[in-house]
Amino acid sequence: MSGQTSNAASSDRPLPDAPRIAIVGSGAVGGFYGARLARAGFAVDFLLRSDYAAVCEHGWQIKSPDGDFHLPAGSFGAFERPGRMPCADLVIVALKTAANDQLHDLIGPLLAPHTAILTLQNGLGNEADLADCFGAQRVVGGMAFVCLNRTAPGVIEHIDHGQIKVGEYRGKVVSRDAKRESSASLRAKSIARCFERAGIRCEVLDDLLLGRWEKLVWNIPFNGLGAALDLTTDRLLASEAGTKLVTDLMHEVAAIAAAAGVVLPVDIIERNLVHTRSMGAYRSSMQIDRQLGRPLEVESIIARPVAEADRLGVKAGRLRQLLRLVAAVNLGKDDPAR
Amino acid sequence: MSGQTSNAASSDRPLPDAPRIAIVGSGAVGGFYGARLARAGFAVDFLLRSDYAAVCEHGWQIKSPDGDFHLPAGSFGAFERPGRMPCADLVIVALKTAANDQLHDLIGPLLAPHTAILTLQNGLGNEADLADCFGAQRVVGGMAFVCLNRTAPGVIEHIDHGQIKVGEYRGKVVSRDAKRESSASLRAKSIARCFERAGIRCEVLDDLLLGRWEKLVWNIPFNGLGAALDLTTDRLLASEAGTKLVTDLMHEVAAIAAAAGVVLPVDIIERNLVHTRSMGAYRSSMQIDRQLGRPLEVESIIARPVAEADRLGVKAGRLRQLLRLVAAVNLGKDDPAR
Repeated sequence: MSGQTSNAASSDRPLPDAPRIAIVGSGAVGGFYGARLARAGFAVDFLLRSDYAAVCEHGWQIKSPDGDFHLPAGSFGAFERPGRMPCADLVIVALKTAANDQLHDLIGPLLAPHTAILTLQNGLGNEADLADCFGAQRVVGGMAFVCLNRTAPGVIEHIDHGQIKVGEYRGKVVSRDAKRESSASLRAKSIARCFERAGIRCEVLDDLLLGRWEKLVWNIPFNGLGAALDLTTDRLLASEAGTKLVTDLMHEVAAIAAAAGVVLPVDIIERNLVHTRSMGAYRSSMQIDRQLGRPLEVESIIARPVAEADRLGVKAGRLRQLLRLVAAVNLGKDDPAR
Repeated sequence: MSGQTSNAASSDRPLPDAPRIAIVGSGAVGGFYGARLARAGFAVDFLLRSDYAAVCEHGWQIKSPDGDFHLPAGSFGAFERPGRMPCADLVIVALKTAANDQLHDLIGPLLAPHTAILTLQNGLGNEADLADCFGAQRVVGGMAFVCLNRTAPGVIEHIDHGQIKVGEYRGKVVSRDAKRESSASLRAKSIARCFERAGIRCEVLDDLLLGRWEKLVWNIPFNGLGAALDLTTDRLLASEAGTKLVTDLMHEVAAIAAAAGVVLPVDIIERNLVHTRSMGAYRSSMQIDRQLGRPLEVESIIARPVAEADRLGVKAGRLRQLLRLVAAVNLGKDDPAR
């Protein structure tokens, strides 16, 4: 930590009172939370790719059970290239993890010495990817527990849920033997206050890994099988066979988490099944990526949990098989025909 | 065998010289072989469902590397109901096995005492299903090694291959301990001659099970994974992960066959991969059934081989997992929405 200037990024340092927020990756997650933060009065700059033209012209349209709203163009920053964007106090990363090889180029230009980076990406290892590029002291981990669909450029349908959980990143140590510092830092608390001001529930976790594995219990079966089999969540749970595939995977994920020292709620599998049944015919993001021929988030959502199982000596045969199934349908990346 | 009249169905009794042939199940397989037999001069009656109107009006259109041809309406029998059809000397069953619960009603009306029944259906247990309905002495097993697609009602595209293998059904005994009679009966030989007269290679097998398992080595991975993942054969083999899923399943199927006393060619897996690569972007029949929301042939192609593995004490964990995957996407049967 030596060599840092006094205003460098640190968990002891909260965000400024009126932070400037950059959203990197303006799909459903980035668009939704960014629009909510902008509507609440924060200065928000979006880095956009496919939706740039539509959002510049029409702004963001959010349909939500919390209330539909329109965020007019001109009331936020919209950029196609990071080099044109102002430096931010907080960068929120909502890129697909399949694009993590671009983190350096996309985020680097937005950083002042004090800038914090919050990742809301799926799966394991995103904090480490960011730390490798920009230093662990900048990185805060986060999970969005939310059902969203981008239904057209600049149009996001918020279907259900929305809570965010954040926690300081304390480095790559992930097993139970690691002594963990409390992660309820001043910085994480001030990030949570931003979301709360935008009407979004945000919990600060002492243990970031608890949130990561809690989300993986849902993401691995429903994103993995959803993409591999091209089935919506209700279809996956419509048959005994599908329900068994889902629950067997959930048990395996919980076993890996337990080996990593993460104590998940005892009823997590039952609760996940109940709340997923309440979601109707939901297409997971990985199923949508498959349908659109886009690269899948295989590495962060499935391959890294498999590697973690290997490291911890957990068998995880079904997860390993799922990795093959998803890899077999992951033709978006190297298929010029799609 | 007592109580049979002298002209009752028997493997010692060849077909008449100019047999009347009924095709039950006039999809791609039934339409293709039936049209070839009719073109060769046999009296052929088709039992049709979805293609009835088109075939009555326009006949059959066959596109084939062996030569395109048109079989005009009026040069064969076309029926919507079996009760209207004349009795046949040979019934060729090319129904989807998901319809095997209708065998009694669809085939019963076509049977004279001497009528033989040849099944060209996929998977295990179809001969036993027919024997349960009509007696084992009528039943001849067969496999069509062919790539076909029905591209429109009454229009069949023959893509590659076409050989048929037939063998007498000798009852349910399937393991190596069973003493097998030679199946190269007069009847099987006369059936083979019919196909040969129509320009179709047809081999008479001493051991029907050899053909069944030989075909399952292809059918299980490419139909099973093709339907579960909704991938064409070339896509399944386009990735390392997909190729491993396919070959692991092939090894498991070969191990079950070996436990059943069936000696498959040593290079069967390599040969299957090579010839499948030569087929291009082929949609297996089960993938097509999935795409059209039709019931899948899960029972005969996957569930019965799993049951056979259980009976023989072979582990077959991947095949069991495949059964769950395919069952999860098999929503056609009880899904009124599709």
